[in-house]
Amino acid sequence: MSDAADAPDLLSERCVACRRDAPRVTDEEAAALTPLIPDWEWQEHDGVPRLVRTFRVSNFREALALTQRVGELAEEEGHHPALLTEWGKVTVSWWTHKIRGLHRNDYIMAAKTDALARDVGLIGTPAAGTST
Amino acid sequence: MSDAADAPDLLSERCVACRRDAPRVTDEEAAALTPLIPDWEWQEHDGVPRLVRTFRVSNFREALALTQRVGELAEEEGHHPALLTEWGKVTVSWWTHKIRGLHRNDYIMAAKTDALARDVGLIGTPAAGTST
Repeated sequence: MSDAADAPDLLSERCVACRRDAPRVTDEEAAALTPLIPDWEWQEHDGVPRLVRTFRVSNFREALALTQRVGELAEEEGHHPALLTEWGKVTVSWWTHKIRGLHRNDYIMAAKTDALARDVGLIGTPAAGTST
Repeated sequence: MSDAADAPDLLSERCVACRRDAPRVTDEEAAALTPLIPDWEWQEHDGVPRLVRTFRVSNFREALALTQRVGELAEEEGHHPALLTEWGKVTVSWWTHKIRGLHRNDYIMAAKTDALARDVGLIGTPAAGTST
């Protein structure tokens, strides 16, 4: 059985409501989850880590449409990113404001953002073994 | 006759197509235009100045709707901002990529963004004398 078969399937998970004392992901969890979203960059802003990915599109209108779709996904899940819309690109950042850190929700939403981008043809399917 | 009566009316202007050798606003022009958009902050990113304003709204859905409206305005004028959509706020940044600086277009678009925000009730009307 491959490692991939044992990996959590983030797409099947839903965000859970997040309180101020909700747990941040542990180093062990982060090590297991990070390979599932290999194209997301870990960035720190004012001491708070974020998962960040920039999606390239053809013009401003397409960027605006992608922002709208990621925003609707966020509303459905009740967990909200920062979306930077510019000509030809959208930069999506996930983190959990209340805990000033990364919650499992953020990895779930990064994976769901990737799935949405695949659905609209912005990115290809992941290489075999990198996701279930 | 008041100074305001002599001030340019940015709302009546349209963006002009901008080439790489288009003129940046001069210090004299900037001094005349800045009072017309008093709530915009001058920020520098990687050596390039921007006009930046954050609009507060009630939640994420309203932020997404404002982003959409400012984006549509940008498409109509053919001049495009960076729009940062977050829960409860949208940060709008105008500058002219091609000239790595501020063009009169950016002041026009800042004024038109203010007008749009007034139309949807996000901000009040300017104090008498600050705009025509």
